[in-house]
Amino acid sequence: MQTDLSAALDIGGTKIAGALVDAHGRLLVRAARPTPADQDGATVMRAVAEVVRELAAGPDWARVAAVGIGSAGPVDAQAGTVSPVNIPGWRAFPLVAGVRALVGDRPVVLVGDGVAMTAAEHWQGAARGHANALCMVVSTGVGGGLVLNGRLHPGPTGNAGHIGHISVDLDGDPCPCGARGCVERIASGPNIARRALANGWLPGPDGDVSAAAVAASARAGDPVAVRSFERAAQALAAGIAATATLVEIDIAVIGGGVAGAGEVLFAPLRAALRDYATLSFTAGLTVVPARMGTDAGVVGAAAAAAQQSRLDAFVPAP
Amino acid sequence: MQTDLSAALDIGGTKIAGALVDAHGRLLVRAARPTPADQDGATVMRAVAEVVRELAAGPDWARVAAVGIGSAGPVDAQAGTVSPVNIPGWRAFPLVAGVRALVGDRPVVLVGDGVAMTAAEHWQGAARGHANALCMVVSTGVGGGLVLNGRLHPGPTGNAGHIGHISVDLDGDPCPCGARGCVERIASGPNIARRALANGWLPGPDGDVSAAAVAASARAGDPVAVRSFERAAQALAAGIAATATLVEIDIAVIGGGVAGAGEVLFAPLRAALRDYATLSFTAGLTVVPARMGTDAGVVGAAAAAAQQSRLDAFVPAP
Repeated sequence: MQTDLSAALDIGGTKIAGALVDAHGRLLVRAARPTPADQDGATVMRAVAEVVRELAAGPDWARVAAVGIGSAGPVDAQAGTVSPVNIPGWRAFPLVAGVRALVGDRPVVLVGDGVAMTAAEHWQGAARGHANALCMVVSTGVGGGLVLNGRLHPGPTGNAGHIGHISVDLDGDPCPCGARGCVERIASGPNIARRALANGWLPGPDGDVSAAAVAASARAGDPVAVRSFERAAQALAAGIAATATLVEIDIAVIGGGVAGAGEVLFAPLRAALRDYATLSFTAGLTVVPARMGTDAGVVGAAAAAAQQSRLDAFVPAP
Repeated sequence: MQTDLSAALDIGGTKIAGALVDAHGRLLVRAARPTPADQDGATVMRAVAEVVRELAAGPDWARVAAVGIGSAGPVDAQAGTVSPVNIPGWRAFPLVAGVRALVGDRPVVLVGDGVAMTAAEHWQGAARGHANALCMVVSTGVGGGLVLNGRLHPGPTGNAGHIGHISVDLDGDPCPCGARGCVERIASGPNIARRALANGWLPGPDGDVSAAAVAASARAGDPVAVRSFERAAQALAAGIAATATLVEIDIAVIGGGVAGAGEVLFAPLRAALRDYATLSFTAGLTVVPARMGTDAGVVGAAAAAAQQSRLDAFVPAP
């Protein structure tokens, strides 16, 4: 039997998704459970086990060479543990050991969800063919991951690319992480909405105060809504420029709900990038929307597992 | 004849230094010329050629396997050109071709001076044994380089690790690079002195208005001098924390004249790092002084050449 598949788990605060993924990024088998995020750790682990057992029930399971897990962070790939902010029952929870007990002697690879999304965009999406890339999710939070020298750079603990929590405003507003002026504190969806409301933006008759509603107002010309997106774009640009200046990337890929605002976000972002990415070697940097959609988590976890387990069929051509 | 040496060039705005370096980092032969920085490009290249010819005159030259160049930046390792800010006669100057014409068919490796200093600290100095490190020079400017996964990370153009020009204050003072609030704009020696003077610091009877003089005042308890170093430390901490958050480093090594201030800089820097490096995977980050001194440039250029040319004797053990 050829072992040409990766099994993948994408673990978030609302859903635990799983899939068997082939070397072309196709999902052959899917399974999912709601995350019992308000339950104790063992209960959450039982939901993971149900997803794995459902994946393992069919004949394709015998083709699985490696298992990849992308999890909400922080993760600790060295210890094999996770402490997702939005799953309080898991603190330094031994997820890798728990999954390993379910999958035989297959290698199990753990990365943060931003790293998984990056693996997907690099393998099949907007960062394909780029040897040095930053991929980001701008949503309720701001996360990310890096491709360096043609390969995923998860870092020793699987958390590299955490662009949401670099400070671009060292005297700025306190961030829940403990620092000040983090990219996430300025550019996340809730902060875009908060800033618009604080500056006098009025939601529509439906009372929707989401970043998507602010984006709709901005598209209709509301100057307060426009300015809130411009400020988010400025913070994202400073963070992306910092990344390019530090490690040399030539593309930044942005997904997540806030990226759905389209040109309301991307137009001021491109303009602000010219202000902050000023050194000659960052001049070619471009910013583009993500392409992988909601399957990015499982596809990326599969790619990370394959890449770290040296399943060469999965590794994108340089 | 065994080819077990690297030839190294360290090209700065005041001096062009060269050496033959063995696999233990020892300098067997040295040569140097003042940089004719106010002359035309061909004249500067002639000074480089004189250094190379002096290195090549002795019997050890036959043992040279590769040639490393660390140059003031920006550099372009792909094009083989350099455009050092402080050598106006060189703009996209084909330095690699010029050196190659002097050294036979040996490989020639070009990196920025921050990358070269990093290679030296990783091979022989304070970053030795660390698989993921940021090394910095804080002086007239602020430069740096990265070690990732146990290897130097020069980036495609040889400029990675340019921490001096990441913005940590997105609305801050304009930086000569064109951006705002760059680490260098806050933390370089001249900016430490400028800020102290602007806030009422008075130099001593010798009229010395250098950062070293501000450091001496700070050591004597002058609160304005102390605060100027604290502000520099805050900006450095934000930049170092950003680097750790983006790529996962476990040590930051700081050299250069401003690092000579010792605890006047390092004490507030360690305190500020606790404010900005807040995520669990950055908790183990330490900051230490550089160890390699003025030979870091040539030793690092030699190490970069050896590492990129796969002279395994030079590669530090992981």
